[in-house]
Amino acid sequence: MREINEAMLIDFYELTMAYGYFKAEKKETVYFDLFFRSIPDNGGYAFFAGLETIINYIDNLSFTEKDIAYLRKRELFDESFLSFLLDFEFSGTVYSVKEGTIIFPNEPILTIEAPIIEAQLLETFLLQTVNHQSLIATKASRIKRAAKDCLVLEMGARRAHGVSSSIEGARAAYIGGVDATSNVLADQLYGIKALGTMAHSWVQLFDSEYEAFKAYAKTYPDNSTLLVDTYDTLNKGIPNAIKVIKEILLPKNVEDYAIRIDSGDLTYLTKKARKMLDDAGLDKCKIVVSNSLDEYSIEDLLKQGAPIDIFGVGERLITAKSDPVFGAVYKLVAAKKNGTLIPKIKLSENIDKIITPSYKKLYRVYDKKQTHALADLITLQDETINENEPLTLFDPNFTWKTKTIEKYQLEPLQTKIYNQGSRVYDYPALEDIKTYTKQQLNTIWDEVKRFNKPHKYYVDLSQKLWDLKQKLMNK
Amino acid sequence: MREINEAMLIDFYELTMAYGYFKAEKKETVYFDLFFRSIPDNGGYAFFAGLETIINYIDNLSFTEKDIAYLRKRELFDESFLSFLLDFEFSGTVYSVKEGTIIFPNEPILTIEAPIIEAQLLETFLLQTVNHQSLIATKASRIKRAAKDCLVLEMGARRAHGVSSSIEGARAAYIGGVDATSNVLADQLYGIKALGTMAHSWVQLFDSEYEAFKAYAKTYPDNSTLLVDTYDTLNKGIPNAIKVIKEILLPKNVEDYAIRIDSGDLTYLTKKARKMLDDAGLDKCKIVVSNSLDEYSIEDLLKQGAPIDIFGVGERLITAKSDPVFGAVYKLVAAKKNGTLIPKIKLSENIDKIITPSYKKLYRVYDKKQTHALADLITLQDETINENEPLTLFDPNFTWKTKTIEKYQLEPLQTKIYNQGSRVYDYPALEDIKTYTKQQLNTIWDEVKRFNKPHKYYVDLSQKLWDLKQKLMNK
Repeated sequence: MREINEAMLIDFYELTMAYGYFKAEKKETVYFDLFFRSIPDNGGYAFFAGLETIINYIDNLSFTEKDIAYLRKRELFDESFLSFLLDFEFSGTVYSVKEGTIIFPNEPILTIEAPIIEAQLLETFLLQTVNHQSLIATKASRIKRAAKDCLVLEMGARRAHGVSSSIEGARAAYIGGVDATSNVLADQLYGIKALGTMAHSWVQLFDSEYEAFKAYAKTYPDNSTLLVDTYDTLNKGIPNAIKVIKEILLPKNVEDYAIRIDSGDLTYLTKKARKMLDDAGLDKCKIVVSNSLDEYSIEDLLKQGAPIDIFGVGERLITAKSDPVFGAVYKLVAAKKNGTLIPKIKLSENIDKIITPSYKKLYRVYDKKQTHALADLITLQDETINENEPLTLFDPNFTWKTKTIEKYQLEPLQTKIYNQGSRVYDYPALEDIKTYTKQQLNTIWDEVKRFNKPHKYYVDLSQKLWDLKQKLMNK
Repeated sequence: MREINEAMLIDFYELTMAYGYFKAEKKETVYFDLFFRSIPDNGGYAFFAGLETIINYIDNLSFTEKDIAYLRKRELFDESFLSFLLDFEFSGTVYSVKEGTIIFPNEPILTIEAPIIEAQLLETFLLQTVNHQSLIATKASRIKRAAKDCLVLEMGARRAHGVSSSIEGARAAYIGGVDATSNVLADQLYGIKALGTMAHSWVQLFDSEYEAFKAYAKTYPDNSTLLVDTYDTLNKGIPNAIKVIKEILLPKNVEDYAIRIDSGDLTYLTKKARKMLDDAGLDKCKIVVSNSLDEYSIEDLLKQGAPIDIFGVGERLITAKSDPVFGAVYKLVAAKKNGTLIPKIKLSENIDKIITPSYKKLYRVYDKKQTHALADLITLQDETINENEPLTLFDPNFTWKTKTIEKYQLEPLQTKIYNQGSRVYDYPALEDIKTYTKQQLNTIWDEVKRFNKPHKYYVDLSQKLWDLKQKLMNK
């Protein structure tokens, strides 16, 4: 059993700043946006995941006597601040897009409105959670799309970056599109069906591969996937599997069985295997493959006609190997001073690190039939858009690129999750999130979903917001 | 507070196999080796990390009523097996190389001797822990070596793959060579000094950058690192920092202060910054940089003469971005049948997936002066090597490549951690592991430590072990 207080998962500078604000008696309400800057794997879209983890974190956010004792030992903070932390309760308001929503760079995924110290202390946990879970959900969506109608099983626990990488990773992968996991703890905690049958060690332990398969099929007639590559896939493994299926499973009228191949050239071997199985009358026998697969190798295998039914995907999904960083950041965009909202900006030597200031609203713009999303639009919080009037969208960087649309519908993407410290949102069941992600995918044009140089989906600013940003940049 | 039972962090196939062994009454003692196949980033060496986590896991390994209730619901296992799990206690013997040891592909890092079900159930957690922590320790070692005498601060929590990725990642990075972390929880749990000062939000919140720096320096005269790139590094940030250092810190005779640059061209900016600071008489002011750094960019910056004192390293360390998978595997190598040891092999369509069979011993071969390691040698467990006789090493794949050495010393690398279920090893303090890794690095020739095409360090088999492997492969 391992017990940790996630409230302490903070970067030290959040504490030094918090103490600085405390000593300077800075208590103003501020606004932080959480957003990301670019889509992993040069993809065209990303999925937001992690909201349930964030809610559990905020619901339980407090410091214990043990935490305070540790902080006291650092000899940097005075007792009045330590007492303040011991009494700490989150009193802010949180807006978030719903888990499973498709998201794009530079739009506010979460917006936090809270006294400065509270808002600052949330930074690391919120970023870590969104960065990790959105990364894996996005990768899983790519892999599932490459696999088309084949089932995809997440089985990366052994290559994950620690416990939470594997269990919240399995959850995010499930949201993003995989069908099941190998991870028992993820099943126990989140109800994601955990599956699995045998490793090479099972085959090795028996006196022969044939004996090993037979013993397995006898124990699990309804759930036998025989791993055929321990010694020699084509000459021994598949013939032994065919023999056992015919001897044990067919007489019991079992219809659900498979072989698994975990090495070698998977196109060559699955084609040979399919023929051997079909020739033996086992056209119902499914073929499962695994071995460092990702969306690129899966796409290639299917393009080459590999007759695969189920993909087991491990290390390249659970670590998002080809691009393992989802660069979400958490930036101060406004502060309230004597009741007035003061928009804040951060410039940068890197143009793409300049932030969009102020307290904002995020919309998805749909065509009137509500089938496809046309663009996302960010406005000031107190701005209203009249949906009966034409809407002119323009690229915030290349403002001469404009598009005016007559018939459209706006969907606000953020929902209020906490209102002044009280939770006002119940997170949906995991299955409902999964259904929602599928619907979301259908609202995005195929051009945006392409792996190779996808069409860029526009995230535009309202004229008022764009004007404000220019004004602050020029100041 | 989050509480999970790590015993349930298993792949489902370990349960199906365990139940299969249970029903078939297979209770033989088996031997599993945990080893890895290739070094990330095409490096020449890796560091082993994760043993403390593994010990905490095995010390507490048991299933709760809640776990059993979950398993019962799966309707796959009978009550006798569920009772067996509820009473489960680990009774095996575990050998491991010490944490912080330099390791190479295909040598047994851990060896487990236990009844088959027990050995099988450890698989996922052991692999996950070794894969994650060795990956990060190895990456950290590369980064610290690139940084030469500069301090390196691990600050990746926000981009880590979940909670354990960040806290055990910080620990592994510390073992591998970084000097401190930004992660408060890692400090609280493991005593790795957590450091940090201010984010851009601090600077943004005040009415001016100057006011922000002044407020910070007043709160922390002994520990001020001023972040100078919020608006305009050279024209505003550094002049404001110089002003505040002169006004607040110098009159107090403070000697330890710094500026941090987090964007832009770090060579150009640090050279300019150094000159501005020196011209202002602040030659003691240190320069800290951050922004997606890793061993490659750090090496380039220093090669270009960037006058940097401290590197903050985030996402590319904590995710091991350039190669985020450490491919350790856990393979059955032998089983005891009626008191006799039966070596086991697994062939594969991929030559490099063939395993080295049997219960083995691992040695590091040093030159007589014990300064440098010459090679590693794997022998059968019951084999003895007479150190007074010359030793002929040969490449296990290209056997004509041989080398005979006259004067040498053998160091057994594995230590017994558990003896028939009882722990017989106390893990060392983290600082001692860190000291040990530094000593370890000194025993490896620079040729092996090179980033670009390092010299291959040899891991050889004894003649007897090689003969056994050939015999089993030919069978």
